[in-house]
Parts: sequence; structure tokens; C-alpha cells
Amino acid sequence: MTTAEISGPDWSTRETPRTPEEWIARAGEVAAILASDAVERDRAAATPYAEVRLLKDSGLVTLLGPAEHGGGGQNWPTAYRVVREVAKADGSIGQLLGYHYLWNWAARLVGTREQWEHVEAEAARNRWFFGGAVNPRDDDVVIRDEGDTLVFNGRKSFSTGSKVSDVTVLEGVLEGTDKHVFAIVPSGDPGLTFHDDWDNIGQRLTESGSVTISDVRVPWRDAAGYVDKEFQPRVYNTLNVPTIQLVFVNFYLGIARGALETAIAYTRSRTRPWLHGGHERAVDEPYIIDIYGDLSAALWSAEALADQVAEEGLWFHEHPDEVTERLRGEHEVRVAAAKVQATEVALEVAGRIFEATGARSTTSREGLDRFWRNVRTHTLHDPVAYKRREIGVYLLQDKLPEPTWYS
Amino acid sequence: MTTAEISGPDWSTRETPRTPEEWIARAGEVAAILASDAVERDRAAATPYAEVRLLKDSGLVTLLGPAEHGGGGQNWPTAYRVVREVAKADGSIGQLLGYHYLWNWAARLVGTREQWEHVEAEAARNRWFFGGAVNPRDDDVVIRDEGDTLVFNGRKSFSTGSKVSDVTVLEGVLEGTDKHVFAIVPSGDPGLTFHDDWDNIGQRLTESGSVTISDVRVPWRDAAGYVDKEFQPRVYNTLNVPTIQLVFVNFYLGIARGALETAIAYTRSRTRPWLHGGHERAVDEPYIIDIYGDLSAALWSAEALADQVAEEGLWFHEHPDEVTERLRGEHEVRVAAAKVQATEVALEVAGRIFEATGARSTTSREGLDRFWRNVRTHTLHDPVAYKRREIGVYLLQDKLPEPTWYS
Amino acid sequence: MTTAEISGPDWSTRETPRTPEEWIARAGEVAAILASDAVERDRAAATPYAEVRLLKDSGLVTLLGPAEHGGGGQNWPTAYRVVREVAKADGSIGQLLGYHYLWNWAARLVGTREQWEHVEAEAARNRWFFGGAVNPRDDDVVIRDEGDTLVFNGRKSFSTGSKVSDVTVLEGVLEGTDKHVFAIVPSGDPGLTFHDDWDNIGQRLTESGSVTISDVRVPWRDAAGYVDKEFQPRVYNTLNVPTIQLVFVNFYLGIARGALETAIAYTRSRTRPWLHGGHERAVDEPYIIDIYGDLSAALWSAEALADQVAEEGLWFHEHPDEVTERLRGEHEVRVAAAKVQATEVALEVAGRIFEATGARSTTSREGLDRFWRNVRTHTLHDPVAYKRREIGVYLLQDKLPEPTWYS
Amino acid sequence: MTTAEISGPDWSTRETPRTPEEWIARAGEVAAILASDAVERDRAAATPYAEVRLLKDSGLVTLLGPAEHGGGGQNWPTAYRVVREVAKADGSIGQLLGYHYLWNWAARLVGTREQWEHVEAEAARNRWFFGGAVNPRDDDVVIRDEGDTLVFNGRKSFSTGSKVSDVTVLEGVLEGTDKHVFAIVPSGDPGLTFHDDWDNIGQRLTESGSVTISDVRVPWRDAAGYVDKEFQPRVYNTLNVPTIQLVFVNFYLGIARGALETAIAYTRSRTRPWLHGGHERAVDEPYIIDIYGDLSAALWSAEALADQVAEEGLWFHEHPDEVTERLRGEHEVRVAAAKVQATEVALEVAGRIFEATGARSTTSREGLDRFWRNVRTHTLHDPVAYKRREIGVYLLQDKLPEPTWYS
Repeated sequence: MTTAEISGPDWSTRETPRTPEEWIARAGEVAAILASDAVERDRAAATPYAEVRLLKDSGLVTLLGPAEHGGGGQNWPTAYRVVREVAKADGSIGQLLGYHYLWNWAARLVGTREQWEHVEAEAARNRWFFGGAVNPRDDDVVIRDEGDTLVFNGRKSFSTGSKVSDVTVLEGVLEGTDKHVFAIVPSGDPGLTFHDDWDNIGQRLTESGSVTISDVRVPWRDAAGYVDKEFQPRVYNTLNVPTIQLVFVNFYLGIARGALETAIAYTRSRTRPWLHGGHERAVDEPYIIDIYGDLSAALWSAEALADQVAEEGLWFHEHPDEVTERLRGEHEVRVAAAKVQATEVALEVAGRIFEATGARSTTSREGLDRFWRNVRTHTLHDPVAYKRREIGVYLLQDKLPEPTWYS
Repeated sequence: MTTAEISGPDWSTRETPRTPEEWIARAGEVAAILASDAVERDRAAATPYAEVRLLKDSGLVTLLGPAEHGGGGQNWPTAYRVVREVAKADGSIGQLLGYHYLWNWAARLVGTREQWEHVEAEAARNRWFFGGAVNPRDDDVVIRDEGDTLVFNGRKSFSTGSKVSDVTVLEGVLEGTDKHVFAIVPSGDPGLTFHDDWDNIGQRLTESGSVTISDVRVPWRDAAGYVDKEFQPRVYNTLNVPTIQLVFVNFYLGIARGALETAIAYTRSRTRPWLHGGHERAVDEPYIIDIYGDLSAALWSAEALADQVAEEGLWFHEHPDEVTERLRGEHEVRVAAAKVQATEVALEVAGRIFEATGARSTTSREGLDRFWRNVRTHTLHDPVAYKRREIGVYLLQDKLPEPTWYS
Repeated sequence: MTTAEISGPDWSTRETPRTPEEWIARAGEVAAILASDAVERDRAAATPYAEVRLLKDSGLVTLLGPAEHGGGGQNWPTAYRVVREVAKADGSIGQLLGYHYLWNWAARLVGTREQWEHVEAEAARNRWFFGGAVNPRDDDVVIRDEGDTLVFNGRKSFSTGSKVSDVTVLEGVLEGTDKHVFAIVPSGDPGLTFHDDWDNIGQRLTESGSVTISDVRVPWRDAAGYVDKEFQPRVYNTLNVPTIQLVFVNFYLGIARGALETAIAYTRSRTRPWLHGGHERAVDEPYIIDIYGDLSAALWSAEALADQVAEEGLWFHEHPDEVTERLRGEHEVRVAAAKVQATEVALEVAGRIFEATGARSTTSREGLDRFWRNVRTHTLHDPVAYKRREIGVYLLQDKLPEPTWYS
Repeated sequence: MTTAEISGPDWSTRETPRTPEEWIARAGEVAAILASDAVERDRAAATPYAEVRLLKDSGLVTLLGPAEHGGGGQNWPTAYRVVREVAKADGSIGQLLGYHYLWNWAARLVGTREQWEHVEAEAARNRWFFGGAVNPRDDDVVIRDEGDTLVFNGRKSFSTGSKVSDVTVLEGVLEGTDKHVFAIVPSGDPGLTFHDDWDNIGQRLTESGSVTISDVRVPWRDAAGYVDKEFQPRVYNTLNVPTIQLVFVNFYLGIARGALETAIAYTRSRTRPWLHGGHERAVDEPYIIDIYGDLSAALWSAEALADQVAEEGLWFHEHPDEVTERLRGEHEVRVAAAKVQATEVALEVAGRIFEATGARSTTSREGLDRFWRNVRTHTLHDPVAYKRREIGVYLLQDKLPEPTWYS
């Protein structure tokens, strides 16, 4: 099959959601469509053109965009909930959507007011889908300064979503300096070559392969946050990390929720009671009841923390100029905790559901392992041990996490 | 020492807190006073007259009371936070305060409007401290109907706080029927004999011993919720269980928070780095950092769930007449999850802190084991396995927990 | 690729191992060969003809066979260790070998002395590989009694290894009775049709698909344990369950050991230290050291229990006529414990290694997920919760597990 | 009560045990006596004179002593099992006995053949009970060399058992050097002053308080392992650490076993089924069955590892002159694993039994918390995190643990 077959309602005839609840319901509709063939699409691991189309058509991509330009005008807590909802059905698409939100928002985090207002307006009007080639562990994209123009050359190991996007956030280092520059370029720029080398055990549809950048030209005026070739730093710039880490948290939780709900449905309809257990239905088995009770409590707890920390984060996005290093650091510590908990619970849920669905649920056709593969893959993005470390160091030494690409 | 020595500021000169934040800060002041000799008081296990005095003087006992009668006019989410705060310093006193809130509120849960308005006014004006003799597992208090008067006789195995209280909520069964009656009686009624037989490994100051009830007389008009000798049932009556279970949750979390903070302070000031570990300070030991990071993340998570569920519960107290069985049942399931998580995290925190404080922290003088003893004792109140069961049955069978004294 | 390409030494020139240590070393050689392309073979999921060939050529299949007929003359504790060793490299082949041992031994467990001496001699002389079609949860193979001959008809949902075997243990019920009959038939019998429908997420090479049995004819004299058409029961018959459950235990432990060793090799050679961690090598990262220390301790512990219980089981095989119901039952309880522990540790090891190998180790090419998929699949064979239950019931109620196909 | 009241059979009329099984049975008899008032003795925390008397009278103290001098002639694996058995009933006395074995054996580990043969003969003949004042973290005992005599002065923070012993192993540093000297001195030496300052939450009867050493005189010829004032080192010297760490492991396991058995007995006889659970007996509650099944499996596993490692250690004691650094190091790594597992399982068992015994089992009178307090206290002796570290470093870096007082 090709993903082009994804179908759904005629979204153009539908009213745009207005409240957070309506947006989450909309995400639920999208999730239901994605769920219907999630196993097959995961196996095929085709480029998710149709899935991105669905995110656009349903309006989800413009959730955070300014209302005056056709965006949803919603805030990050709602965006996280929407990511979670989509990830229930398809972890890859949840990740793509969450990354998109961050990269779109990056203009606001890093750019000047003029720049981000422009980007957000264009993005909302044109329903741009954002990808990125910013994998910060590499510094192998070098920028040549040609006066009015910057010329990017190099390679990024990972460029999640870029191949299926309209625009790509590109990152590089100005030749001979340690100045990083972010800029938005058309994903179709002939200087971008995608190598289609993402073949991992999970999050298989995220198009996270490597990309070569050859003479991609960007006007200096589009260098985010630069004024007269000088970057204008502020603490708010560093909110990109807590913000994207909360994206991670939310698609982990979404995947876990999807695993749990899928497993419950399976147990209810298909798991057989144990031959020698004395129960007529699997749903009456004490051990099965206990597993779901236990997993659900743990998941609700991690969700509650994610929600609470998202609310705490909202303040920063509403008061970008009041962000202090201490407030930012304490928020990052809380985000770290949400990451620790989401990671643990998602791995546990995705691994243990099988004990409640039973031996026959391990067929490849059923595809119940996709939740575990998805969570196992992305939770390694950066070591969760260092998240526990951030918290512990803060508590014991009163030291805030130093802002890096991962903290 | 006797607990009569507890001292503090001259509370009468202090302004009454007005916002939730101010109330929580007030609770923090009370906690600081209780913390100063918590180890000694736990060991002495004396009757907590002075502690209850402190709760009254500081105003905490009237937190939920109507403002027009001198109460704080706050809501349950704030009450839970206050319980949590007090329990950080002293799990027993946190429990006493939380039970007091519930028994005071019981008038509203069970009584007629006339009754509860009267009780709440009196309680606020007189700063009544409430105890209870309602242990619902026993049905050994029998009530004789003498026309206008009810006469209670029997025995209750547990009567938490009653001995140190002003009034006691008494429960019994009308002779020859299965009708339960609740009524508030003066704790000094000569018909109440406290047996001082609570000698358990934890929550040692809660005065949870047994009580004999001999010819305690109550006018029929004080039989809560009865009109013309007939009880007027409504679903809201059954909110007592989720409400008290959230009290449990919050003092478990408070004890855990107290354990964590006490341990962190110990590690910072007194734990020695390991002889062969190559670190100069204990706070630099990776394993110690990891423990605190891990425990703190888990505790924040359980706290977030407790907060979220408390907010969900608020709706019921604000809309007592709109409570349906389904809404009530779904809320109880969420409360069950909060209980499961609080129990787990509190036991884990209270048990594992020692690995980060080290061998010398096990002296009796230090008293670091009191957190574990407190949590271990009360978390057995009703089997947490049945809380997981409530959740699992709901998810698998779509069955709501039947309202009982424990669910 | 086809599995026919497996190569190795010219086994025919090698001396037959004589001691347990030599047999385990031989198994290690076989494992090394299997490990070299385990990922590719797992992905291809081809019928493991070449792998079974290797087990025969290397002599492993006759390990338990009588020395006078060319067998290894070893005992079960050594067989378990050999299974474990092979499973390190390839969980499927470890399972096939272990099942083979049990089915070969089934003659001794169920058959008359004359029968099993004959079977063991033939099996050793001809290096028979055994498969089975005995899935005891189904009773859908019916046997017609035609005087001197039994005629089997029906279907089994699972027939592990049968397709690649020389002989198959077939089970059915005598028409109109509840008498079960086991018999060994040539796997090439035209009445056996294998449906190649085993397509599961793990243990992919075990050929565990379904089989149709059409008019498979067996002389009455080959009906295991029957004399004059009457079965001769003894307690030793029921040792099949503890014996095969220990086979499970040992290939779970082998898979876990393989996961751990593969991960350690990966971490040593390829995992990068964390960018912001201050360590130059991944092997110096405290959290990575801790993970391996923790997992290794847990695995050693489960291995020690498996070894101890295997030694306890040896007595039964050496004293088949002295087995009492009590001794058998207490052994089964110990086997249950070994299963519980092996299951837990294998899932934990297979799931957590990734935290120590890092993000890049999730490529499909690396195939590190096969350990988890293998363990996750087979540990659901029968619910491990019922194993804990066997132990608990024995301890609390002094009741022995009733002999069934699973206990 | 005073511990002087401990009574038992007239041991003098009993035959000395001869086989390991008989010794373990003897230990079981001692344990039964200790168990009868373990709770009261734990609370009283009196000096365990009567308990040590019992260890002597029952013959346990000479278990390892040479048969020709009246000792039991047993080996370490049996000694560990005996320690475990005694610790089931009384963790403190199990510790005292295990430490005694090590200190008695220290002569053989450190001394010359002439020295240890003398010590072992005397110890066996006189049924010496050994204490120690060697706490190696302090170097505050200084030895003056007066020609033929060594004079010890200083202080040790911990001197487990010394107060109730006949002889004490004393350790100090030769003034002006870094040479450590061990020697055995009469515990009644007037230069030893015990400060009775061990008041900890667990292992309360171990008399582990501090001791001042004032002019304790020892002939040079008794300086263990010294010949002509020069120490004769060999690798076997360093076996003291793995040997004592296995002592720890075994009394942790004994305490855990005692906790489990005590809890099972309680549940069987006194735990009430849950009011709303639908079961008539607590022993039929699925969650209770599950807890015991789970804990028992885990404990058996840790026991199996302890037994296996004890057997591995036996080789060293039988071949003291063949011990190489590599063999010693690899053994220490295995011992570390046994410690990790014993610590984990003992804490888990001691903490979780309450969930299966129920709310009423938390009375102080019942004393069920003593198991947790005992395990929690001693498992902090040295950080278990460094044990995991030893294993991880060995696996990842192929580095053996450096012999220290803790590894």
C-alpha cells in the first residue's frame, strides 16, 4: 500500500476548532484515521506524504499560528495535548507534528520580532509543514559569508521531517567563528539532498535520515535573531530545549496511551482466560485487572506531571522578556522530571501490555510491538540518566542545568 | 519532654491568611515548628494536645470553614495542600488535620442544609477540632431509639483523634435495622471511654485507639441527614470516601516530601563521600545524585496527579446536587490511581533515602526511619491492591466502583 | 540469503566432547557460528534447515543420548546449559534444541522401558531431530482405533520444529474417550501438512506454525506407555512439565546473556560518551557502568537459581520410580520460581541494554531488538502470573500444583 | 526481661553435629529459641550475653574449628548457611556469629601457619567468641614498638561484638609507618573501654559501639603475619573482604527469610480477608498469593546465587597459596553481585510483607518492622552502588576491583 490512500472527511467543509477541547477532539479524529492502518504503515515505512497532508488538511499544523492569519491561536499546553493525541495512533506522526510545532515556533524563540511575525504569518497562511536539519551534536555545516548572503555547506546526520516538509530550519556555524546561525529555507532547495537512511526499529515514519547541504543560500536578513550580523541573545532563546523536550514527553505519553488502549481493546475482545484459572473471561482474571490498574495509575500520573509542567512553561512563552536564568533553570529541572517519568512509564506500559493480551497477541500482523519499538527508539535521543542528574544536581548543589542543546 | 512545650509565634497577632498561597505558607510555618522536635515527639508518642493547640492557634483548623463565621473560606484543593505541608514535618499531625477536615465536612456530605450550616458555623466560631469514631469495618455500635433521642452503645476499634478533639463524629446502627446514623457529640461526653491502645510502629501520635460508647445520647434532630427519622440519600453522600482517600494521598505525599527534604539536608551537611570513590563531597557522588533525581521526579509526578484529581473533586463539592453515579464512580477511579501512586512513591522515597544519607544516618537519634514507619503503617488502611483493582475493573469491564466505606 | 550457507568446521574430524565442560564449549562454538549472521537470519525468518543441520553435525542433538549408541550420555543440567549457550546467539535455535531434548526424552517420561530404550537408541544412532505437535491446549486431534493401528486426524495450532525435524511427537485423544496417546511419527509422513503460519514478532525461526494431521497411522505398540491398550501411569510421567519449563528458563537466560554480551561489546566499541558528561569514553560513564552492574547481578542470580533447580531435577530423572506427588509438586514450585525470575530478568536485560548502547544502536541493521522480541514472545507461552500463584498457594495453603500441561 | 533468661535444651548431653545438614539443623534449633522472644529482645536492646552463651553451648561457635581440637571441621559454605539460619530469627545474632567466624578465620587469612594453628586450636578448645575493633575506615589506633612488645593506643568507632567476646581482633598502624598490624587480645583487657554508644534503628543487639584502646600490650610474635617484624603478604590475605561480604549477604538473606516466614505464618493465622473482596480467607486473596509468590521467587534466586558464590569461594580457602590476583578479583566481582541481589531482595521482602499481613500487623507488639530496620541498617555498611560499580567496571573495562577494606 502507499500512504497516499489515507482518507478522511472532507476537512474543507468542517469548521475550524476554537477551544482547546475542540482542537483535542480534532486531533482525536485524525488519530482515529491514522490508527486504522497504523500497523501496515509502520511496516511499510514509506515516506509519510499522505500523513502530512492529513495534518495540514485537518488544520492541526496551524494550531499555534496567529488567528489573524488563519492559525488556531492556541497555546503550547494545547499543542502538547494534540501531539499526545496523534501519537496515540502513530508515534511517528506525533513526533513529526511536535517537531513541526517547535521549528515553527523557533522563529519566535530565536528570531527578531519582525522575523517571527513574518514567519508565523506565512506559515499560517500557507499551512507550511516544518522540518529541521539542526542536529546540534554535529558541527559539520559551515556557513560562508558572502556579504548579503550566507551559503550553507555540509551534512547533518538527522533531519527529521525535512523531506516531507515545506520549509526546513537549517543550522550551521559561520566559517572561522563559533557563531551558530538558524535560518528557514525551502525544503525543495536543490542544495538539499536527503539520503533516506533512517531505518531504525522505531519511529520509522519520521524521515529522520541524513541530509547533505550544498550551497544553500540564505539572505543575511533571514538569519534568525541577527541584527547587523550580530546575534541578539536573551534567555528566552534557550527555551527551545525545555519546549522540545516537552514535545518528546508528550509523544511518549501518547504512544503509551495508545499502547494501553489498544491492549485493553484486545484483552476485552480477544484474550482468552487461562485454561486452568477458573475464570470465564480474560477481563475477570485478577492478574490482568491488576496489570491494567497498575499501568493506568502510572500513566495518569506521568500525564498529570506533563500537564502541570506544560502550564508552568506557558508563562515563559507569554512573558518572553521576563525569563531569568533561574526561572528558566528551575523550569528545565521540572521538564527533566517529566521526561524521566514519561520515559519510564512509556517503556513499562509498552513492554508489559503483552502480559495482559497474551501469547497470541505477538503475531506480526497484530503489530503490538510497535509501541515498544517507538518508545525504545526515541527515549534514547539523549540519555535519561542525565535528566535525573540535572534534578539531583539542582537539589543537592543548587546548580541549575547549563543551557545546552539537551538541557 | 511533653508536647505542651511546643512554642511558636503569638498567632493571635497575626493576620488570617486569605489566599491559598498564604494558607500554604501558614501551614509551612506550622510544619517548621513541628519539625523542630518531630523525632522526640514521635518517640515519646504522647497525646498530642499541644499539637492540636497549635493547629487551632495557627488557624489551620478553620481553613474550610465559612468566612462569615471566621473560617478561612478555602476549598478542598487548598486543604489537601495544607495537609501535605503539615505532614512533611509530622505525619501524625498531618493525618489528624486531614481527618478533622473530613469529619467537619461530613456535616455537609451527609447532613441537611440546616444541619451543616449550623455545624460549620459553630465549628468555625469555636475552632472545634473534630475526631471520629466511625470505623466502618465494625458494626458494633447499636443505637436505641427513645423517641426524641438516640442512645449509642458499643465499641469502635479505632477513633482517630477523638481523644484530643472537641467533638466526635459517632456512627452506629439503629437497633433492629440496617440504618446507619452519624451524629456529632462532645468528645468529653462521659459515655466515651478512650482505651489508649494505639501503639503501632507509625503514625504514633494519631490517638487511633479504641473507644467504648456507653449511653451517649443524641437528639434525633442531630442525626445527620435524617428528616422525620428517614434518611435523605443522594449521591453526594458517597463523596466521603474519595474525599478522605485524597486526604490519605496528601499526607502520604507530605511524609514523602518531608523524607526527601530531610534526607537532602542530611546529605548536604553530613554524608561523607565514599572513601574509595574519588569524590570530595557526597553531593558529587553520581549514585547519590541519581537517587535524588529519580525520587524527586517520581514524587513530583504523584503530587501532580494528586493536584489534578483534587481539582476534579472540587467540582463535586461545588455542585453537590449534580453528582451522578457515573461521575462519582469515574472520580473514585481517579482517586484510586492517586492513592496507588502516592503509596508507591511514599514507600520508595521513605525506604531509599538511606542509600543517599549513608550508614551513619541510621542512629535512633536521627530518627530517619519515622517516615517509612509512618507511611508503611497508614498505607495499609485498606489494601492498595483493591485500588488497582477498581481501576482495572473500570477499564476492562466498564464497571464503576460500588460505593462502600473504602471505594 | 538462505540459511543453507551456514558454515563451520568439519565437525566429522572433531572428537566428541566427553565432559559437561567440553559439551558446553562445543555449544559455544555452535553459538559463535550462529551469532555471525543472527540478525540477518532473524530478519529472513527462513526455515532453519541449515541451523538444524549444524545442531546435528556438531553433535549437540545427541547430547542426552545413550553413549552405547553414540549419544553423549550427558544429563539434563548439562543439556540446559547447552540450550542456554546456543540461545545466547539465537533464541529460536536454542528453543528448537531444548524442545528437541524434551521430545526425545518424552519416550522415557511416558513410554515403557522397551519403548524408550528403542527410541533413544534409534535417535542417537540416526541423529534424529525431534519436533512436536502436542500443543496441549487443543484437543482437536482425534484417534481412531483400528485394532492394531491408531489413526490420527485433526489439527494442532502449534508444531514447533516439526517441519525441520526427522520425527514428530504427535498427541491425540482416543475417539470417544479422554485417553491421550503420544506417539512418534516420521515428520515426512504425507499425512502431516505444515501451514507455515508462524509469523510472530519473536522466536521467528522456530517453525511453530500449525499442522494438519490426516490419517497418520501408528501401530498400537508405539503408543507411548500403553500396554495392552491401557496406559501405565506413574508420577514420573508428569515430570514433562517441570522439565520443559526449565528448558524455557534456560533459553530465556541464554537470550538475556546474549543481549548483555552483545550490548557490552557494542558499548565498548561503539557507544559514544555523552557530549556534556565530561567522560572521554562511554565505558567510564557512571550510569552505563551502573546499568551493566545491575543487570549482570540480576542475571547471575537467575542463572544460579536455574542451575540449582536443574540439579534438584536431576534426582527425578535418576530415580524415576521414586518420584512421589509431594516431591514432584515441590520441585514444580521451585521450577515456577526459576521461571518467574528468568522471565523478569530476561525482559529487563533485553529492554534496558539500549540505555547503555545509546541512540544509534536502534538501527534495524544492528538488530539489537531481537533479544527483546524473542523473550517477549515466548515468555507469554503460559501466564507467568500463574507461576507466582503456584508458589504462593503452596506457601500459604500447603497445596501442591496440580499436574497439568502447564504446571 | 533480661537476655539471661534464654533457655534451651541441655546442650551438653547432645551429640555434636557432623554433617552440614546436621549443623544447619542445629542452627535451626538455636534460631527457634531466639525467635521465641526476638521482638522483646530487640526492643530491650540489652547486651547479648545470654545469646552468645547460646551460640557457645550449642556448639555453633566452633563450627569452623579444627576437629582435632573439638571444632566442627566444617567449611565456609556451611558456616554461611548457619549464619543465615540464625539470622532468620535474630539478625543481630546472625551478624555476631558471622563476624565471629571471620575474625576467628582472620588468623588463617593473615597469620603465619604457626600462628593460625595455635589460634584455631585455642579457640576451638575454649569455645572463644571473637569480637573485633578493626573498623578500617579509621586509622586512629597507633602502635608503639617497644622491642618485643607492641602497645596499642587510640579509638575505634565500631567494635562489633567485642564487648560480649572472649577475644578481640585489634588493628592499628605502627607509629611512623603505614604498616597495619592485626593481633588478638583478651576482650577483658583493662585497656579496652567500650562506650555502649550503638543505638541504631536496626541490628540493635550487635554491640557495635565505639571502643577506646589504652596501652593494650601485645607481644610482637602475635602480630599476625609478621616474621621478624616484616609482614609476609600474599593474595590470600585479601580474601577477608569477599569472605566477610558473603557473611553480610547471608545474614541479609537470613533476615529476609525470617521476614517472609514470619509474615506467612501471620497471614495464615491472623490476616483477615478483605471485607469487599469476596474471599473467605486471606490466603485465598489473589493479591496476597501473588505477593508471596513473587517475594519467594526473588529470595530463592538470591539464595541460589549466594550458595553458588560460596562454593566458588571455597576453592580459595582450600588453596590459599594458589590464589592469584585475577582469580581473587573475579571472585570479588561475583561476591559483589551476591551483595547487590541480597540487598535488593532483603529490602523488598522486609518492606512488602506488610501488604500481605495487613493493617493490624503494624502494632509495635508484633514487631514486624524489625526485619526492615535490621536490613536497612546494615545494608548501608558500604554503598551497594559501589558493588554494582565493581561489576560494571569489570565487564566494561576488564578491570578487577582493587583490594581495599571494602572490595
